[in-house]
Amino acid sequence: MKLLEDMIREKGVVKAGNVLKVDSFLNHQMDIKLFNEMGKEFKRIFADKPINKILTIEASGIGIACVAAQYFDAPVVFAKKAQSINIDGDVYSTSITSFTHKREYQVIVSKKYLSSDDHVLIIDDFLANGCALKGLIELVKDAGATVEGIGIAVEKGFQDGGQIIRDMGVNLHSLAIVDSMNDATGEIVFRQE
Amino acid sequence: MKLLEDMIREKGVVKAGNVLKVDSFLNHQMDIKLFNEMGKEFKRIFADKPINKILTIEASGIGIACVAAQYFDAPVVFAKKAQSINIDGDVYSTSITSFTHKREYQVIVSKKYLSSDDHVLIIDDFLANGCALKGLIELVKDAGATVEGIGIAVEKGFQDGGQIIRDMGVNLHSLAIVDSMNDATGEIVFRQE
Repeated sequence: MKLLEDMIREKGVVKAGNVLKVDSFLNHQMDIKLFNEMGKEFKRIFADKPINKILTIEASGIGIACVAAQYFDAPVVFAKKAQSINIDGDVYSTSITSFTHKREYQVIVSKKYLSSDDHVLIIDDFLANGCALKGLIELVKDAGATVEGIGIAVEKGFQDGGQIIRDMGVNLHSLAIVDSMNDATGEIVFRQE
Repeated sequence: MKLLEDMIREKGVVKAGNVLKVDSFLNHQMDIKLFNEMGKEFKRIFADKPINKILTIEASGIGIACVAAQYFDAPVVFAKKAQSINIDGDVYSTSITSFTHKREYQVIVSKKYLSSDDHVLIIDDFLANGCALKGLIELVKDAGATVEGIGIAVEKGFQDGGQIIRDMGVNLHSLAIVDSMNDATGEIVFRQE
C-alpha cells in the first residue's frame, strides 16, 4: 500500500537491532486518516470473505481494528493480556512470547465473544516472528471459528513470521512488507507486490 | 446519551462489589456503530474547543478514542503502561493505581507526541475513582499542553472520581452516569441530565 510505505519512509526510524519505530503514526501516536485508508484496503482485499468479527490484540492493534471494522460492519474483539479480575473464568487462553518485551504472557478471549459461528478477520499492527498471530489463530481454532484472513499493517519480511503463517495456509496480507532496512543509512526496502 | 444507557440496561451485567460488566459492547467486544454515535456526541459536546489531539490510555480507551477522532480530525495518542523497550527514554511519566487490577503502574507518553502547542481531549471508557484520569491530566500538564475537555463513556457516579475531577475545574462529560446499581435485581439507575 503506497500511502503506508510512503509514511514509513518519511516518518519511520530505523534503529539498531532490527527495530523499526513507527510510533509517530501507527502505534503510539495514531494517524486516523491513515487508519481509514488501511481499513478500506483491508475491505478491498477481503471483500469476498463472509467476515462477521474482527479479532485483534491489545494494545496497538485495537485502533487499526476499530477503524477498519467500520468497513466490515462487524464488532471488534481484542485479546487481553491476562491479569484482569473483570474477565469471567470462561475464556480461551494461549501463551505468547513477546519479541518487544522479551517475555511470555497469557492472552485470553472470553468464550462469549468467539464461537463456531464466527468468521474472523485478524488485524494487527506488526508481524515479525509471528508469535502473537499464532496465538490469535489458536484462540480462533479453540473456539471452532474460522480464520477468514489476517490483515497486518507492517510486516518485517526479513523475519520468519510471515512465511510461517503463510505456510499454515492462512490468507495473510500485509499492507507494507519491509524486506530490509539499514540503521546506518536509514534506508528501507519494501517487497514489490 | 440514551443509546448508551439503553445498551447498558440491555447488555450490561451488575456484579457484586460494584462491578458493572459492559464487555459485550464496550471494552472486550466493541460495538463500532455505538462508538461512532459516541464520537458524534463527543464532537457535539466539545464542538467549540480547539482540539488538535486526543489522549487516551491503553487498552480499552483506544477503540473509542480512534473512532471518535474521526469527528475531530485529530490524531490519537495513547498512554502506555510502561514496559516497552521500543519507547525512547524521553517520556512524560506518572503513576496510576488501578481499581480493576489492584496495583500501581507507570504510564508514559513520549515527549514527541505531547507539547505546549496541544489542545487535548482526553477520552476513556470508564471513570470510577478517577486515578487514571488524574494521571492523564498530569501528563498533559507536564507537557505544558491544555486539557480542553474529558469525554468518558461510563461514569460510576457513586464513586468519587467524577466529583474530584470536576472540582479541579476540568470540563468533564460522561455519556452515561450510573448513580446506583443493584447486583441482586440487576437494576441500574442513571443520573438525569
